[in-house]
Amino acid sequence: MAVNGKHITVLGAGSWGTALARHLAVNGSTVRLWGRRLEQIEEINAFRENKRYLPGVILPGAMLVTTDLEQALEGASAVVFSVPSHTFRTVLRQALPFIKAETLIVNTAKGIEENSNLRLSEVFAAEAGPARLEHYAVLSGPSHAEEVAREMPTAIVAASTSPHTAVLAQDIFMQQNLRVYTNPDIIGVELGGALKNVIALGTGIADGLLGSDNARAALMTRGLAEITRLGIVMQANPLTFAGLTGLGDLIVTCISRHSRNRRAGIAIGQGKTLQQALDKVNMVVEGVRTTRAAHNLAAALGIEMPITEQMYQVLFHNLSPQAAMKNLMARGKTREVEEVALAHIKWQSQQGIEL
Amino acid sequence: MAVNGKHITVLGAGSWGTALARHLAVNGSTVRLWGRRLEQIEEINAFRENKRYLPGVILPGAMLVTTDLEQALEGASAVVFSVPSHTFRTVLRQALPFIKAETLIVNTAKGIEENSNLRLSEVFAAEAGPARLEHYAVLSGPSHAEEVAREMPTAIVAASTSPHTAVLAQDIFMQQNLRVYTNPDIIGVELGGALKNVIALGTGIADGLLGSDNARAALMTRGLAEITRLGIVMQANPLTFAGLTGLGDLIVTCISRHSRNRRAGIAIGQGKTLQQALDKVNMVVEGVRTTRAAHNLAAALGIEMPITEQMYQVLFHNLSPQAAMKNLMARGKTREVEEVALAHIKWQSQQGIEL
Repeated sequence: MAVNGKHITVLGAGSWGTALARHLAVNGSTVRLWGRRLEQIEEINAFRENKRYLPGVILPGAMLVTTDLEQALEGASAVVFSVPSHTFRTVLRQALPFIKAETLIVNTAKGIEENSNLRLSEVFAAEAGPARLEHYAVLSGPSHAEEVAREMPTAIVAASTSPHTAVLAQDIFMQQNLRVYTNPDIIGVELGGALKNVIALGTGIADGLLGSDNARAALMTRGLAEITRLGIVMQANPLTFAGLTGLGDLIVTCISRHSRNRRAGIAIGQGKTLQQALDKVNMVVEGVRTTRAAHNLAAALGIEMPITEQMYQVLFHNLSPQAAMKNLMARGKTREVEEVALAHIKWQSQQGIEL
Repeated sequence: MAVNGKHITVLGAGSWGTALARHLAVNGSTVRLWGRRLEQIEEINAFRENKRYLPGVILPGAMLVTTDLEQALEGASAVVFSVPSHTFRTVLRQALPFIKAETLIVNTAKGIEENSNLRLSEVFAAEAGPARLEHYAVLSGPSHAEEVAREMPTAIVAASTSPHTAVLAQDIFMQQNLRVYTNPDIIGVELGGALKNVIALGTGIADGLLGSDNARAALMTRGLAEITRLGIVMQANPLTFAGLTGLGDLIVTCISRHSRNRRAGIAIGQGKTLQQALDKVNMVVEGVRTTRAAHNLAAALGIEMPITEQMYQVLFHNLSPQAAMKNLMARGKTREVEEVALAHIKWQSQQGIEL
């Protein structure tokens, strides 16, 4: 099954879905873009521009843009899901009747489902059946939609448990300005993409409170270390977190002024309540839900995640950012590497990797 | 040997040496600060302020500040070297006659010696004898001097092949706002601190050329991956590069507008020659020398370091930044993790780590 130059459907007309649809169309695929809100889709069709989410970027005239899910999906050889993580299960359920079993599915959403604490590939398996995971890939990494739409150099990852599927996803997206790496570790890619938002909220809070480059670098580094600890216990490959979907995405999210999670954090660090911060940003801030999910996972699995714990106390139990920072700095003397090394060796042992 | 509250000598009155001297004095040690230039030392003594390198920070009145090396070192229970890496061997040679064999040595310089391609602990061993490495520690990590001098929260690492020495170094620096982790991997700590300057120059060039957050995150992530590849072959622990002295220091150096390496890179990305860029920054830009050293090490050891290679061509062979970026994006399709995983397993095998 080769899908390049074929019919590709993108579900979700936010900034990332729109940028990817444009990218695929410009590079030779026949692309259909689906969105839920009629008003927005009509506007895109009228102006060939997504004025709200990707202003200034003109879409190719041949691209079909529609609110009709059946029309969007008919005969598609690949389907890209680009909807917010908390709507993924609903949209997937509506779309599945129109998608053939062997169709390539690419998911770009980043999050952990609330209450169930499931990764989105687990949600997919629950809805579509585990056998179809063979055709399922995750696309993740440091990629502002605005920059990809403007053909700036970007490197991302296509992850799938099936090497064949990872390469298919790599093939449809890879191009001079969009470099795609494959990675078999879908668990690590999903966890990194979701959990970096917790750290972006945290570094935002520190930035709002202190404006310290040292503190931000320390929080990002130790934050990635605790995400890696959790990931290892959840059977992820620890090296994934040092890659584009872990470290790379963490960097973009923690340093960009466009990041919603970071902006919400800065408002909290400056003394706003969570609700005031969310009102100010006025868009989905994935890191808030994900902090709760990460806290629950860490508790259930017995993993020490000091930054996540302090974030949870700040967001949901009114701990002041000052007190949270003090708690983090006042911990006992620690060695930096041994803890992760031991967990890492345990992981290799689980995977049956031989020296 | 406990050194807390004892006589500590700091050699080097730049911004970091001055900030560390102040930090140690404020926290109860008797501190002497040595600098080479008489004019500067007289100014510090007159105003209790290092106006050139750390303006606005007042030093405790009891601190002796001198150009007399013998006076500075007499009876010291710990000596902190905080001189530029290319002057380390010279200053060490002058200081050694006044330092007792069992004295704790802490080095904060970051670099690889030109021509010899030696790490600074190797330079120390060559000058002082290998036996004294037992008392030698490296202090490294994401730490702008200005922020440490203002008591902003900072986390750094004390590394030594001797666990006892690492803990001694941790003890003299650790305090409420300066969290010190220990790490036995002195090779990884030295390589990370030196080589991150190459990547900071490279991300600066990309920033000057493109201003792209995606490209910067990709360069930082893939840059750390190639540093890790080199480090593994040089017997470093790959996990060190994911820690404060690798990733953490890389973050601070690549995103701060105060970084000289980054500023020099931006000028080159905007079309300046190397010499014009160095003239503009008008201070030591460690990354230039280190790019040559890293290029030589990679060639000698047969390690693929594509970013370092392109940097070397830009700095020393007039390759345009545009062409370098194009070369990086045009490489073949790659898998993200396997290469590092294999090298990592090889490292564990070398170290005799058992599963």
